[in-house]
Amino acid sequence: MSVVKFAIKGESKTATKFEAKARSFSFVIDEPGALGGTNEAPNPVEYLLGSLAGCLNIVVHLEAKEHNVIINKLKIDIDGDLDPAKFVGLPGFNRSGFQHININIILEADATEEIINAIINKAKARCPISDNISGVTQINYTVSNVFR
Amino acid sequence: MSVVKFAIKGESKTATKFEAKARSFSFVIDEPGALGGTNEAPNPVEYLLGSLAGCLNIVVHLEAKEHNVIINKLKIDIDGDLDPAKFVGLPGFNRSGFQHININIILEADATEEIINAIINKAKARCPISDNISGVTQINYTVSNVFR
Repeated sequence: MSVVKFAIKGESKTATKFEAKARSFSFVIDEPGALGGTNEAPNPVEYLLGSLAGCLNIVVHLEAKEHNVIINKLKIDIDGDLDPAKFVGLPGFNRSGFQHININIILEADATEEIINAIINKAKARCPISDNISGVTQINYTVSNVFR
Repeated sequence: MSVVKFAIKGESKTATKFEAKARSFSFVIDEPGALGGTNEAPNPVEYLLGSLAGCLNIVVHLEAKEHNVIINKLKIDIDGDLDPAKFVGLPGFNRSGFQHININIILEADATEEIINAIINKAKARCPISDNISGVTQINYTVSNVFR
């Protein structure tokens, strides 16, 4: 298939609050007070986990359909442990991001455990977010200072 | 520092629409019509890019403060190319996620290029989202079928 470009554009509102625009949508990212923010919206790592859950919702349904399995209910809870030392600027040997991410999928579907496991395993491989988190992805930076 | 747990809980609303709850906040994830969705909200990959931008906003400001640099304006635009073949279930040799991610940071600050580059380089390493995307992160799955 042809490669598709996805994009967001955004602007800093304060040192912790950011407004991102994606097509006709916009969403705000902030930090809770304990992390120095104004607590007006979810923080970046919560959006990351939500993005992963939203992605799995779609691919689990796609994969279930291809297995002729009807999903009556699907809940996805995700958590992860993170050492905020590097983020806040303290010395630390742990990575700045999640050390690992735990996904708990609770579904209701009339299918054997074997079929459900096959659906989930194929769904993992189809989900762009789990691919970008579990594998290495190159990030290129361009910086312009318009003051100068 | 002590490790901190971040979490979301969420529920499928339709085969493409998902509602995620993080603390007192909730946000909806959907797909545009062209990707089979009902276009009620940004899609997972747009939230991923927004999460990265929101994270960089915070750490660039933290790092600038430590360099005694005042940032008057900060815009962050991010895009990435993705081959949707695997996502939609077609054969394809490309990965399912972004092949690479491009970040364009436009700021206004009275500082030399050298200082700005130092701020951005240190900010990259402090940002949990860029760490989880650019490096490998283990994802653990637990699946329960409550039908059985």
